[in-house]
Amino acid sequence: MIVESTVINEYLDEVFPEVSLKPNDPQARATMRVWTKAVDEVLHPACAEVTFSSCLRHRVKRLPPKEYEKFLASTPSLSITPQWRERRRELVTLGFDAPGLGEQYRLYDSYLDKMENTLAHQSWLAGDTFSLADIAMTPYVNRLDMLGWSQMWEQLRPQVTAWFKRIKARTAFEPALLNWCPPDLTADLLTFGRQSWPSAERLLAGKD
Amino acid sequence: MIVESTVINEYLDEVFPEVSLKPNDPQARATMRVWTKAVDEVLHPACAEVTFSSCLRHRVKRLPPKEYEKFLASTPSLSITPQWRERRRELVTLGFDAPGLGEQYRLYDSYLDKMENTLAHQSWLAGDTFSLADIAMTPYVNRLDMLGWSQMWEQLRPQVTAWFKRIKARTAFEPALLNWCPPDLTADLLTFGRQSWPSAERLLAGKD
Repeated sequence: MIVESTVINEYLDEVFPEVSLKPNDPQARATMRVWTKAVDEVLHPACAEVTFSSCLRHRVKRLPPKEYEKFLASTPSLSITPQWRERRRELVTLGFDAPGLGEQYRLYDSYLDKMENTLAHQSWLAGDTFSLADIAMTPYVNRLDMLGWSQMWEQLRPQVTAWFKRIKARTAFEPALLNWCPPDLTADLLTFGRQSWPSAERLLAGKD
Repeated sequence: MIVESTVINEYLDEVFPEVSLKPNDPQARATMRVWTKAVDEVLHPACAEVTFSSCLRHRVKRLPPKEYEKFLASTPSLSITPQWRERRRELVTLGFDAPGLGEQYRLYDSYLDKMENTLAHQSWLAGDTFSLADIAMTPYVNRLDMLGWSQMWEQLRPQVTAWFKRIKARTAFEPALLNWCPPDLTADLLTFGRQSWPSAERLLAGKD
Protein backbone atom coordinates (compact mmCIF):
# COMPACT_ATOMS: atom_id res chain seq x y z
CA MET A 1 0.00 0.00 0.00
CA ILE A 2 1.25 3.46 -0.85
CA VAL A 3 0.07 6.37 1.28
CA GLU A 4 0.28 10.18 1.25
CA SER A 5 -0.71 12.24 -1.82
CA THR A 6 2.75 13.66 -2.48
CA VAL A 7 4.37 10.24 -2.29
CA ILE A 8 1.62 8.72 -4.43
CA ASN A 9 2.07 11.42 -7.07
CA GLU A 10 5.82 10.77 -7.33
CA TYR A 11 5.08 7.04 -7.52
CA LEU A 12 2.48 7.42 -10.30
CA ASP A 13 4.89 9.58 -12.27
CA GLU A 14 7.55 6.87 -11.96
CA VAL A 15 5.37 3.92 -12.95
CA PHE A 16 3.73 5.70 -15.91
CA PRO A 17 6.75 7.19 -17.69
CA GLU A 18 4.82 7.92 -20.93
CA VAL A 19 3.89 11.35 -19.62
CA SER A 20 6.49 12.99 -17.43
CA LEU A 21 5.21 15.21 -14.65
CA LYS A 22 8.67 16.18 -13.45
CA PRO A 23 10.90 18.76 -15.15
CA ASN A 24 14.00 17.33 -16.81
CA ASP A 25 16.41 19.64 -15.07
CA PRO A 26 17.38 18.50 -11.53
CA GLN A 27 17.33 22.08 -10.23
CA ALA A 28 13.77 22.57 -11.53
CA ARG A 29 12.81 19.23 -9.95
CA ALA A 30 14.13 20.59 -6.64
CA THR A 31 11.94 23.68 -7.12
CA MET A 32 9.00 21.37 -7.79
CA ARG A 33 9.65 19.52 -4.53
CA VAL A 34 9.86 22.72 -2.52
CA TRP A 35 6.27 23.38 -3.68
CA THR A 36 4.99 19.87 -2.91
CA LYS A 37 6.71 19.99 0.49
CA ALA A 38 5.07 23.33 1.30
CA VAL A 39 1.70 21.83 0.41
CA ASP A 40 2.27 19.02 2.89
CA GLU A 41 3.71 21.10 5.69
CA VAL A 42 1.99 24.44 5.42
CA LEU A 43 -0.95 24.56 3.04
CA HIS A 44 -2.62 21.33 4.05
CA PRO A 45 -2.95 22.28 7.74
CA ALA A 46 -3.81 25.89 6.83
CA CYS A 47 -6.52 24.61 4.48
CA ALA A 48 -8.04 22.48 7.22
CA GLU A 49 -8.18 25.56 9.48
CA VAL A 50 -9.73 27.68 6.74
CA THR A 51 -12.29 25.07 5.69
CA PHE A 52 -13.36 24.22 9.25
CA SER A 53 -13.70 27.82 10.35
CA SER A 54 -15.55 28.98 7.23
CA CYS A 55 -17.76 26.00 6.40
CA LEU A 56 -17.34 22.60 8.02
CA ARG A 57 -18.12 23.78 11.55
CA HIS A 58 -21.63 24.71 10.37
CA ARG A 59 -22.09 21.19 9.04
CA VAL A 60 -20.84 19.72 12.31
CA LYS A 61 -23.27 21.88 14.27
CA ARG A 62 -26.19 20.36 12.38
CA LEU A 63 -25.47 16.98 13.97
CA PRO A 64 -27.75 15.78 16.77
CA PRO A 65 -26.09 16.41 20.23
CA LYS A 66 -24.81 12.84 20.65
CA GLU A 67 -23.32 12.66 17.16
CA TYR A 68 -21.84 16.14 17.61
CA GLU A 69 -19.95 15.12 20.73
CA LYS A 70 -18.91 11.85 19.09
CA PHE A 71 -17.53 13.71 16.11
CA LEU A 72 -15.54 16.13 18.24
CA ALA A 73 -14.05 13.29 20.26
CA SER A 74 -13.11 11.30 17.14
CA THR A 75 -9.84 11.14 15.13
CA PRO A 76 -6.49 10.58 16.78
CA SER A 77 -4.94 13.70 18.23
CA LEU A 78 -2.04 13.43 15.77
CA SER A 79 -3.66 13.86 12.42
CA ILE A 80 -3.54 17.02 10.29
CA THR A 81 -1.52 18.68 13.05
CA PRO A 82 0.01 17.15 16.22
CA GLN A 83 -3.00 18.35 18.25
CA TRP A 84 -5.70 18.23 15.62
CA ARG A 85 -8.52 16.80 17.75
CA GLU A 86 -8.22 19.65 20.27
CA ARG A 87 -7.73 22.25 17.58
CA ARG A 88 -10.71 21.05 15.56
CA ARG A 89 -12.91 21.33 18.65
CA GLU A 90 -11.68 24.89 19.06
CA LEU A 91 -12.40 25.72 15.41
CA VAL A 92 -15.90 24.25 15.61
CA THR A 93 -16.83 25.93 18.88
CA LEU A 94 -15.08 29.28 18.46
CA GLY A 95 -15.20 29.71 14.68
CA PHE A 96 -13.47 32.89 13.56
CA ASP A 97 -12.56 33.67 17.17
CA ALA A 98 -10.23 30.64 17.43
CA PRO A 99 -6.80 31.91 18.56
CA GLY A 100 -4.11 31.98 15.88
CA LEU A 101 -6.59 31.59 13.04
CA GLY A 102 -5.60 34.83 11.30
CA GLU A 103 -2.04 33.56 10.96
CA GLN A 104 -3.30 30.49 9.11
CA TYR A 105 -5.42 32.56 6.71
CA ARG A 106 -2.50 34.84 5.96
CA LEU A 107 -0.17 31.89 5.51
CA TYR A 108 -2.53 30.40 2.94
CA ASP A 109 -2.79 33.75 1.21
CA SER A 110 1.00 34.16 1.14
CA TYR A 111 1.17 31.13 -1.18
CA LEU A 112 -0.97 32.97 -3.72
CA ASP A 113 1.70 35.68 -3.58
CA LYS A 114 4.46 33.15 -4.07
CA MET A 115 2.55 31.74 -7.05
CA GLU A 116 2.01 35.21 -8.52
CA ASN A 117 5.73 36.02 -8.27
CA THR A 118 6.78 32.68 -9.72
CA LEU A 119 4.29 32.75 -12.60
CA ALA A 120 5.41 36.23 -13.62
CA HIS A 121 8.42 34.67 -15.34
CA GLN A 122 7.35 31.13 -16.23
CA SER A 123 4.15 29.32 -17.28
CA TRP A 124 4.06 26.73 -14.52
CA LEU A 125 5.22 26.58 -10.93
CA ALA A 126 8.40 24.56 -11.51
CA GLY A 127 9.32 25.98 -14.92
CA ASP A 128 7.81 25.88 -18.38
CA THR A 129 6.24 22.46 -18.11
CA PHE A 130 3.23 21.37 -16.09
CA SER A 131 4.48 19.33 -13.13
CA LEU A 132 3.62 17.76 -9.78
CA ALA A 133 3.99 21.25 -8.27
CA ASP A 134 0.98 22.51 -10.26
CA ILE A 135 -0.92 19.32 -9.47
CA ALA A 136 -0.20 19.70 -5.74
CA MET A 137 -1.30 23.35 -5.64
CA THR A 138 -4.51 22.84 -7.63
CA PRO A 139 -6.74 21.54 -4.80
CA TYR A 140 -5.71 24.45 -2.57
CA VAL A 141 -6.63 27.12 -5.08
CA ASN A 142 -9.74 25.14 -5.97
CA ARG A 143 -10.83 25.00 -2.32
CA LEU A 144 -10.84 28.80 -2.17
CA ASP A 145 -12.75 28.83 -5.46
CA MET A 146 -15.37 26.41 -4.09
CA LEU A 147 -15.78 28.69 -1.06
CA GLY A 148 -16.63 31.46 -3.52
CA TRP A 149 -13.47 33.40 -2.73
CA SER A 150 -11.98 33.72 -6.23
CA GLN A 151 -11.67 37.46 -5.64
CA MET A 152 -8.48 36.48 -3.77
CA TRP A 153 -6.78 36.18 -7.18
CA GLU A 154 -9.23 37.61 -9.75
CA GLN A 155 -8.95 41.10 -8.32
CA LEU A 156 -5.32 40.98 -7.28
CA ARG A 157 -3.24 38.37 -8.99
CA PRO A 158 -3.41 38.20 -12.79
CA GLN A 159 -0.80 35.42 -13.08
CA VAL A 160 -2.63 33.14 -10.66
CA THR A 161 -5.87 33.94 -12.49
CA ALA A 162 -4.36 32.90 -15.83
CA TRP A 163 -2.76 29.79 -14.28
CA PHE A 164 -6.02 28.64 -12.70
CA LYS A 165 -7.87 29.23 -15.98
CA ARG A 166 -5.39 26.92 -17.74
CA ILE A 167 -5.71 24.39 -14.91
CA LYS A 168 -9.51 24.39 -15.17
CA ALA A 169 -9.28 23.83 -18.93
CA ARG A 170 -7.47 20.51 -18.42
CA THR A 171 -9.66 17.46 -19.02
CA ALA A 172 -8.84 15.93 -15.63
CA PHE A 173 -9.96 19.00 -13.70
CA GLU A 174 -13.71 18.37 -13.59
CA PRO A 175 -13.63 14.65 -12.69
CA ALA A 176 -10.74 14.94 -10.23
CA LEU A 177 -11.46 18.25 -8.55
CA LEU A 178 -15.21 18.79 -8.77
CA ASN A 179 -17.10 15.56 -9.34
CA TRP A 180 -15.65 13.75 -6.28
CA CYS A 181 -17.42 16.22 -4.03
CA PRO A 182 -20.96 15.27 -2.88
CA PRO A 183 -23.45 17.91 -4.15
CA ASP A 184 -24.54 18.89 -0.62
CA LEU A 185 -20.95 19.59 0.37
CA THR A 186 -20.36 21.59 -2.83
CA ALA A 187 -23.46 23.64 -1.98
CA ASP A 188 -22.43 24.15 1.66
CA LEU A 189 -18.90 25.20 0.74
CA LEU A 190 -20.30 27.96 -1.44
CA THR A 191 -23.11 29.05 0.91
CA PHE A 192 -21.12 29.13 4.13
CA GLY A 193 -18.02 30.32 2.27
CA ARG A 194 -19.80 33.41 0.92
CA GLN A 195 -21.37 34.03 4.32
CA SER A 196 -17.91 33.83 5.94
CA TRP A 197 -16.14 36.09 3.48
CA PRO A 198 -16.35 39.29 5.58
CA SER A 199 -14.73 37.45 8.53
CA ALA A 200 -12.13 35.87 6.25
CA GLU A 201 -11.36 39.22 4.68
CA ARG A 202 -10.81 40.74 8.13
CA LEU A 203 -8.34 37.99 9.03
CA LEU A 204 -6.55 38.33 5.70
CA ALA A 205 -6.15 42.04 6.37
CA GLY A 206 -4.48 41.19 9.69
CA LYS A 207 -7.33 42.39 11.87
CA ASP A 208 -7.62 39.53 14.33
CA MET B 1 19.76 28.07 -4.74
CA ILE B 2 18.32 24.82 -3.49
CA VAL B 3 16.80 24.75 -0.01
CA GLU B 4 15.43 22.18 2.45
CA SER B 5 17.41 19.07 3.43
CA THR B 6 14.99 16.56 1.95
CA VAL B 7 14.86 18.36 -1.38
CA ILE B 8 18.66 18.82 -1.36
CA ASN B 9 19.16 15.09 -0.71
CA GLU B 10 16.96 14.10 -3.67
CA TYR B 11 18.82 16.65 -5.80
CA LEU B 12 22.27 15.36 -4.81
CA ASP B 13 21.18 11.81 -5.57
CA GLU B 14 20.04 12.92 -9.03
CA VAL B 15 23.15 14.89 -9.97
CA PHE B 16 25.59 12.25 -8.70
CA PRO B 17 24.18 9.08 -10.25
CA GLU B 18 27.36 7.01 -9.62
CA VAL B 19 26.05 5.98 -6.20
CA SER B 20 22.31 5.55 -6.02
CA LEU B 21 20.64 6.42 -2.73
CA LYS B 22 17.18 5.47 -3.90
CA PRO B 23 15.88 1.89 -4.14
CA ASN B 24 15.29 0.66 -7.71
CA ASP B 25 11.74 -0.45 -7.07
CA PRO B 26 9.16 2.39 -7.28
CA GLN B 27 7.18 0.97 -4.35
CA ALA B 28 10.32 0.94 -2.17
CA ARG B 29 11.04 4.50 -3.29
CA ALA B 30 7.56 5.45 -2.08
CA THR B 31 8.36 3.83 1.28
CA MET B 32 11.57 5.84 1.36
CA ARG B 33 9.64 9.06 0.78
CA VAL B 34 7.14 8.28 3.53
CA TRP B 35 10.15 8.25 5.90
CA THR B 36 11.66 11.47 4.59
CA LYS B 37 8.25 13.15 4.72
CA ALA B 38 7.77 12.06 8.34
CA VAL B 39 11.15 13.55 9.20
CA ASP B 40 10.08 16.89 7.76
CA GLU B 41 6.60 16.96 9.19
CA VAL B 42 6.84 15.16 12.50
CA LEU B 43 10.38 14.43 13.67
CA HIS B 44 11.93 17.77 12.89
CA PRO B 45 9.46 19.77 15.02
CA ALA B 46 9.46 17.07 17.72
CA CYS B 47 13.26 17.20 17.80
CA ALA B 48 13.23 20.97 18.27
CA GLU B 49 10.86 20.54 21.24
CA VAL B 50 13.00 17.79 22.74
CA THR B 51 16.30 19.62 22.25
CA PHE B 52 15.00 22.95 23.59
CA SER B 53 13.35 21.47 26.64
CA SER B 54 16.27 19.20 27.57
CA CYS B 55 19.30 21.29 26.69
CA LEU B 56 19.08 24.49 24.64
CA ARG B 57 16.94 26.37 27.17
CA HIS B 58 19.83 26.11 29.66
CA ARG B 59 22.15 27.67 27.09
CA VAL B 60 19.66 30.45 26.42
CA LYS B 61 19.36 31.16 30.13
CA ARG B 62 23.09 31.81 30.32
CA LEU B 63 22.66 34.88 28.11
CA PRO B 64 22.81 38.34 29.73
CA PRO B 65 19.23 39.73 30.26
CA LYS B 66 19.24 41.93 27.14
CA GLU B 67 20.54 39.18 24.89
CA TYR B 68 18.10 36.73 26.45
CA GLU B 69 15.10 38.90 25.59
CA LYS B 70 16.51 39.59 22.14
CA PHE B 71 16.89 35.88 21.48
CA LEU B 72 13.34 35.08 22.58
CA ALA B 73 11.93 37.83 20.37
CA SER B 74 13.96 36.71 17.35
CA THR B 75 13.06 34.35 14.43
CA PRO B 76 9.88 34.74 12.44
CA SER B 77 6.84 33.19 14.06
CA LEU B 78 6.54 30.74 11.14
CA SER B 79 9.67 28.71 11.33
CA ILE B 80 9.95 25.16 12.68
CA THR B 81 6.23 25.28 13.45
CA PRO B 82 3.62 27.93 12.50
CA GLN B 83 3.99 29.51 15.97
CA TRP B 84 7.57 28.69 16.74
CA ARG B 85 8.60 32.01 18.33
CA GLU B 86 5.82 31.76 20.94
CA ARG B 87 6.39 28.05 21.48
CA ARG B 88 10.13 28.45 21.88
CA ARG B 89 9.56 31.10 24.56
CA GLU B 90 7.28 28.64 26.34
CA LEU B 91 9.88 25.86 26.11
CA VAL B 92 12.65 28.11 27.44
CA THR B 93 10.62 29.55 30.32
CA LEU B 94 8.58 26.48 31.32
CA GLY B 95 10.97 23.66 30.37
CA PHE B 96 9.47 20.26 31.05
CA ASP B 97 6.24 21.91 32.23
CA ALA B 98 5.46 23.30 28.76
CA PRO B 99 1.96 22.11 27.78
CA GLY B 100 1.80 19.36 25.17
CA LEU B 101 5.49 18.49 25.53
CA GLY B 102 4.86 14.86 26.49
CA GLU B 103 3.05 14.28 23.22
CA GLN B 104 6.12 15.45 21.30
CA TYR B 105 8.46 13.17 23.28
CA ARG B 106 6.18 10.19 22.68
CA LEU B 107 5.84 11.05 19.01
CA TYR B 108 9.62 11.06 18.65
CA ASP B 109 9.81 7.77 20.52
CA SER B 110 7.12 6.21 18.32
CA TYR B 111 9.48 6.55 15.35
CA LEU B 112 12.00 4.32 17.12
CA ASP B 113 9.17 1.78 17.29
CA LYS B 114 8.42 2.16 13.61
CA MET B 115 12.13 1.70 12.87
CA GLU B 116 12.32 -1.39 15.08
CA ASN B 117 9.32 -2.97 13.32
CA THR B 118 10.64 -2.13 9.86
CA LEU B 119 14.18 -3.33 10.54
CA ALA B 120 12.92 -6.66 11.84
CA HIS B 121 12.47 -7.83 8.24
CA GLN B 122 14.94 -5.75 6.20
CA SER B 123 18.40 -4.25 6.67
CA TRP B 124 17.57 -0.64 5.91
CA LEU B 125 14.49 1.53 6.29
CA ALA B 126 13.33 1.41 2.67
CA GLY B 127 14.43 -2.17 1.87
CA ASP B 128 17.74 -3.95 1.58
CA THR B 129 19.78 -1.01 0.36
CA PHE B 130 20.91 2.06 2.27
CA SER B 131 18.81 5.01 1.07
CA LEU B 132 17.75 8.60 1.70
CA ALA B 133 15.37 7.24 4.35
CA ASP B 134 18.32 6.06 6.47
CA ILE B 135 20.16 9.30 5.81
CA ALA B 136 17.13 11.35 6.87
CA MET B 137 16.62 9.41 10.11
CA THR B 138 20.29 9.45 11.14
CA PRO B 139 20.42 12.96 12.67
CA TYR B 140 17.31 12.23 14.76
CA VAL B 141 18.69 9.08 16.32
CA ASN B 142 22.06 10.79 16.67
CA ARG B 143 20.50 13.73 18.54
CA LEU B 144 19.17 11.36 21.18
CA ASP B 145 22.60 9.73 21.30
CA MET B 146 24.30 13.10 21.81
CA LEU B 147 21.88 13.81 24.69
CA GLY B 148 23.16 10.59 26.28
CA TRP B 149 19.83 8.82 25.83
CA SER B 150 20.95 5.74 23.89
CA GLN B 151 19.14 3.59 26.44
CA MET B 152 16.05 4.45 24.35
CA TRP B 153 17.20 1.77 21.90
CA GLU B 154 20.05 -0.10 23.55
CA GLN B 155 17.80 -1.48 26.25
CA LEU B 156 14.66 -1.91 24.18
CA ARG B 157 15.19 -2.05 20.46
CA PRO B 158 17.84 -4.48 19.16
CA GLN B 159 17.12 -3.72 15.48
CA VAL B 160 17.57 0.03 15.94
CA THR B 161 20.71 -0.69 17.96
CA ALA B 162 22.17 -2.78 15.12
CA TRP B 163 21.09 -0.21 12.49
CA PHE B 164 22.71 2.68 14.36
CA LYS B 165 25.90 0.68 14.84
CA ARG B 166 26.07 0.17 11.05
CA ILE B 167 25.31 3.85 10.49
CA LYS B 168 28.09 4.90 12.87
CA ALA B 169 30.55 2.64 11.05
CA ARG B 170 30.05 4.57 7.79
CA THR B 171 32.95 6.88 6.90
CA ALA B 172 30.69 9.92 6.51
CA PHE B 173 29.20 9.61 9.99
CA GLU B 174 31.92 11.31 12.01
CA PRO B 175 32.51 14.33 9.72
CA ALA B 176 28.83 14.86 8.90
CA LEU B 177 27.16 14.09 12.20
CA LEU B 178 29.71 14.82 14.92
CA ASN B 179 32.44 17.17 13.74
CA TRP B 180 30.08 19.95 12.62
CA CYS B 181 29.01 20.46 16.21
CA PRO B 182 31.01 23.03 18.24
CA PRO B 183 32.68 21.27 21.22
CA ASP B 184 30.84 23.40 23.81
CA LEU B 185 27.48 22.43 22.30
CA THR B 186 28.49 18.75 22.18
CA ALA B 187 29.41 18.99 25.86
CA ASP B 188 26.19 20.82 26.80
CA LEU B 189 24.01 18.34 24.93
CA LEU B 190 25.49 15.51 26.97
CA THR B 191 25.54 17.31 30.33
CA PHE B 192 22.06 18.80 30.20
CA GLY B 193 20.73 15.73 28.37
CA ARG B 194 21.83 13.40 31.17
CA GLN B 195 20.53 15.82 33.76
CA SER B 196 17.15 15.91 31.97
CA TRP B 197 16.78 12.18 31.53
CA PRO B 198 14.51 11.59 34.55
CA SER B 199 12.09 14.26 33.26
CA ALA B 200 12.28 12.89 29.72
CA GLU B 201 11.67 9.38 30.98
CA ARG B 202 8.57 10.55 32.84
CA LEU B 203 7.18 12.16 29.67
CA LEU B 204 8.00 9.07 27.60
CA ALA B 205 6.07 6.97 30.10
CA GLY B 206 3.04 9.23 29.56
CA LYS B 207 3.22 10.89 32.97
CA ASP B 208 2.76 14.54 32.02
